[in-house]
This record gives sequence, C-alpha cells and structure tokens, in this order.
Amino acid sequence: MPNFTSAYLEKLTTRIFEANAVPSDEAALVAKELVYANLLGMDSHGVIRIPQYTEALESGDIVSGAPTTITKETATTAIVDGGDNFGQVVAFRALDLAVEKAKEQNISCVLAQRCNHVGRLGAYPQRAADQEMIGLALVTWPSYGHHVAPFGAREGRLSTNPIAYGAPTNGDPILSDFATSVLSEGRIRVALHSDQPVPENTIVDAEGKATTDPAGFYGPPKGAIMPFGGPVGYKGYALSLLVEILGGTLAGSVVDDPDRLGNGLSLIVINPAAFTPLGNFKDLMAGVTAYMKSAAPAEGFEEVMMPGEREFQNVARRQEEGITLADTTWTQITEVAEQLGVPL
Amino acid sequence: MPNFTSAYLEKLTTRIFEANAVPSDEAALVAKELVYANLLGMDSHGVIRIPQYTEALESGDIVSGAPTTITKETATTAIVDGGDNFGQVVAFRALDLAVEKAKEQNISCVLAQRCNHVGRLGAYPQRAADQEMIGLALVTWPSYGHHVAPFGAREGRLSTNPIAYGAPTNGDPILSDFATSVLSEGRIRVALHSDQPVPENTIVDAEGKATTDPAGFYGPPKGAIMPFGGPVGYKGYALSLLVEILGGTLAGSVVDDPDRLGNGLSLIVINPAAFTPLGNFKDLMAGVTAYMKSAAPAEGFEEVMMPGEREFQNVARRQEEGITLADTTWTQITEVAEQLGVPL
Repeated sequence: MPNFTSAYLEKLTTRIFEANAVPSDEAALVAKELVYANLLGMDSHGVIRIPQYTEALESGDIVSGAPTTITKETATTAIVDGGDNFGQVVAFRALDLAVEKAKEQNISCVLAQRCNHVGRLGAYPQRAADQEMIGLALVTWPSYGHHVAPFGAREGRLSTNPIAYGAPTNGDPILSDFATSVLSEGRIRVALHSDQPVPENTIVDAEGKATTDPAGFYGPPKGAIMPFGGPVGYKGYALSLLVEILGGTLAGSVVDDPDRLGNGLSLIVINPAAFTPLGNFKDLMAGVTAYMKSAAPAEGFEEVMMPGEREFQNVARRQEEGITLADTTWTQITEVAEQLGVPL
Repeated sequence: MPNFTSAYLEKLTTRIFEANAVPSDEAALVAKELVYANLLGMDSHGVIRIPQYTEALESGDIVSGAPTTITKETATTAIVDGGDNFGQVVAFRALDLAVEKAKEQNISCVLAQRCNHVGRLGAYPQRAADQEMIGLALVTWPSYGHHVAPFGAREGRLSTNPIAYGAPTNGDPILSDFATSVLSEGRIRVALHSDQPVPENTIVDAEGKATTDPAGFYGPPKGAIMPFGGPVGYKGYALSLLVEILGGTLAGSVVDDPDRLGNGLSLIVINPAAFTPLGNFKDLMAGVTAYMKSAAPAEGFEEVMMPGEREFQNVARRQEEGITLADTTWTQITEVAEQLGVPL
C-alpha cells in the first residue's frame, strides 16, 4: 500500500482544494487537519475525505472563503454562523472565540451553525488544551444523519452525536473523542464493503431485529444503530440527547427540519486557573494519570491508557514511518487530482 | 410491606435529624429530598439513607449547621467549602450560587468540596431547570469509593462518578441521572443480600476474572466494577475521568489522597435565553420529545421514554398510592427513631 510523508500529503491536499478556488489559508488549514487525523491513526477522518469535500465544494454545499458572522453574543456566549464554509474553518474560529472569552470570563459557551463537516471533533478541545484550557465539544447532524435509535426504539432519531473533551497536562493533553452510538456509520460501511459482520447488539434491521449483517442496517428499508451502553443504552441515549440539545436546540434548530444542513457544534471552554493555579492543576493531572496506570491490567491488556495516549503514540510513529493509505483511498485522491489538473 | 404518605415520612425524617441537633431548616431540606427520591422510585437514594446519615451525624462526619464558605470566586465561577455539612445542604447552596451567576453571566461553573453524600445527583440540575436553566452536575468520591476499574484494568481507580443533566421544557424537565459505571455498588450489594447473580460483563474478581457472583466483587480481596459501555467501555472510562477532572482535580484535590473526604461536586449552569428566546427553546424541546417518541418501539418496549419521564410518572403514582418501604428499611428506621426517642 502507498506510503507518504505528512508534508507531502499536506501539500497535495492543499493544492487540490486550491484548485477549487479555496483561499490558501483555508485550504492549508483543512489539509493540515485531515493529515493530522491520519497521523493520529484516525484514518476515517483523514485524507479519505478529500473526494467528499471536493464534491461539496463543487456542488456549493461548502462555500469556501465565506466569512464567519456572529449572530448573537454576550461576554461569555456566542452563536456563530459559518456561512457554509468548511466545518474546520468555522469550528476553529468558534473555538478561538470561546477561548478568548474563557480567558477573560473563565468559562464560555459558543455554538456554531451552518458549518459543514467539522471533521475530527477532538481537534477543538485539543486546541483549547494547548492554550491551557479545558475544552468540551459536542456535535450533531440534521435528520439525514439520524441513524441512531433512541433507547427502546428501532428507528433512527439521532446522529452518532460525538462528545470530545481535552484537558491540559505537563505533556500531551488528555484527549477523549467518541461517538455516543455504539458504532459509527463509517464502521458499518467498512464491514459491508469487506463482507464482514459487525459486533453483536450494535445494529437492528428495519423490523427492529438484532443482526450482525451490515446489509440489514442499510436495507432498504433502513435499520438503526444502537446508542452505546448495551443493556444500559439509556445512558448513551441520554448523552446523545444532550448533544442534540446543546448542539442543535440551544441554537434554535428544529430537530427534524429537512432543510437544516451541516453540523451543529457546541463548545464549552473552562479556564482551570480560575479554580486552581495552573501548575498545580497540571501536577494533579499527572497524579491522576499515574494513579490510573497503577491499576493492574485486565486479561488481554498490557497497560491502562489515558484518553488520547494511543493516538499521540501513533503521531510519533507515523511521523517516522510515514502514512500508509489504503489503495482505494489513494486511487480516489489521484482521480480527484487528475480531474483538477493537480500534479501528484 | 409498610406503606406511608410522603408527608408522614418527611415529618418523621425531619424529627429524626432534629433529634441529632440538626437545625430545622436543614433537617427539613434533607428529609424532603430523601422522600422525593422515594417518590421518584429511586429508593436507593431515599429514606433508606436515614441510618447512614444518623451514624455520620453522630461520628461527626456530617457537621450539621456548618456554614458554607466561598474559598475562591469570580463573576462566573466559585469553589464552595461545605464545612462537612449534609451534601444536600451544600450542593443546593452551590447550585443556587451557580444559577445566580448564570442569570447574570449566562454560564457558570461552581465546585463544592467538603460536602457529605449529595444524594440524588439529579436534584441539582432539576432545580436549575425549574429556574429555566440547563444544568449539568458531576460528582466524584475519594479513594474509599474507587470501585470502578479504568478500561483495560482489573482494579478500581474511580468511583461510580455519576453525571446528571436537566433542561427546561413546557412540562416536566428532561432529567438524566446515571452512573458512568455499568452498575452501582448498591446494586451489587442488593444482589449479594438476595443471593442473586449480577448481569454478565459488569464485575470482575480480584484476579480480573469476569464473574456474575457478587461475592467475587466483595472478596476480600476486592474485585472491580466495569465502566459502562461493554466492548466500548473506554467511552464510559473517559466520562468517568471527566467527572474526576471537573469534580476533583479542578478544585485542587489529589486523586488518591487518603485524607480526602466526602463528595467533590461540579455544577455547570447555562442560560438558554442567552442563545434562543426561552419560549422558543421550550417549544423546540417539545419538538425533540415528539420526534423521539415518534420512533417505532423495539421488541419488549412500549414506547420511547425521555430521560426522567418514568420517574415523574412514579411521583404521580406514589403520591396517590403512598410509598412502600422494604421491611428491613422500615425496621432500621424505627430502630434509629427509638434510640433517639422520636415517636413514630
């Protein structure tokens, strides 16, 4: 399988977006974020997205260069309208505004609307943690992404509604980023394409029957993905609802509005220094990490990992060994590049 | 089994606490909250706690009448020191401070330390929602409560670290309240006492072996409870860590400090009116509820429920039918009352 340096992939991705008239700074930002997802080992949020974003640029779903406007603002809160720009462009602007407010007011909440796919959700709490802040991010999709059933239901009414948070430490931040559904839709698609079953108790078919056959989910008619938690899936459901409330409802979105487009993002930023001197907070976080790691590992595990730890190890390794792409992914990228006249 | 009106149980509970020199307003507040937990159907957080609280009053672990002092404060944040008063007394004061700040600043974060058992965690976001606010509450225990293993471990390093949230609607609030572990310790104790197994994949013994025998958890040596999520238990683990970070670390607590006592509580309150007119927000919440309920129920379910809905139904029913207590619970309460010379 083809292997590349992150620098090469970043430059190529930037040029592909520039060929669709994306301003250089926006193209570079999105390219950097996609390639960084590959470095982290989160390939589903990496350069595999180039064809999707290119199509969205060409259809007008992504309006690159669109300014971000603040539609409602107080000292601690804001709603930003991304004008349908790249989700990453809008979400980083929203996060920077939230951090600015938290630096002055110690806590803030900023919502972003009319932004396209924000990509790796952890990117935003990570940037908050890099600025010595605790960041929480929640993101929701409109009804076309409602694949996830409420607990006790067999039809989708929620998207995979991920939650991410980051906290500063003396080293890499604690960085957690997960879907509140038991599986992502992407994971089911991969199983479908590779003729593999999905794990038990994760999907149902259109009749509500448990199945491990990904085709049972896709139908048609379509089945649904379960909220995470298995027998206590009411917990995952409640978290998913919280994401819809803070990412959608709070900004004034109608949950089943067929005309609603793009991600609804909610960011909460807390300044730890408002409570405890920063150095002390970070030392205490080191204590938390050491204490978790002092637990004897369970069968099949070598050690307890902190959220994000494995991903940061991947960055170090992939920076050294390069980023390996699946053949299909690379073929799709080269096709896009050729159509746009971008040399490889 | 004995059955009582809520008014009777509230009066009796108040008098039992007053007999231990608890100021009348504090006795009444804790009594009301315990009995309300019974009304909600959450009997594990109801009057069953009277013997535990009585013992804590007599040992000096609960210092009733202790004033709550603010040790650190900004316009949006505070740390309150509860002076080891009843958890409920301290937590309601902290919540009221958080709501006051959110009314002025639109978002706030208040931490409470040195408070005893805060009881039903949902009580605090519920009071926030009653004042037209979105409330989040997280609570953590010191090392004596560390029954829950990090994902990939077989030894406890975290408490059951519950998360609760509430949001206002046109009727009863949305009210979610759950442990980030797959089972509460109380649930395992009930299984032990009734010679019943616990569900599979919820506990391990001291050697890390999965078991359904509650005695395997208690040992000695002690086993551990799993974070919620089963095969994706890293999600429950990450949430549990978030509770420790916001409820403990942020307030300056050392995670494994053997001298740390009582609950570490974190409250975040958001004013929805800062984003969307309140009436509109509530109408949109009604839409969310209707949309969730429009999903066809899964096998074995009659309808989709919103978080808190079943509990509010219980209140209506138990107010009519009375509160039935287990014989053991009532016997223990009568013993405490007799020792204190409180007539039944």
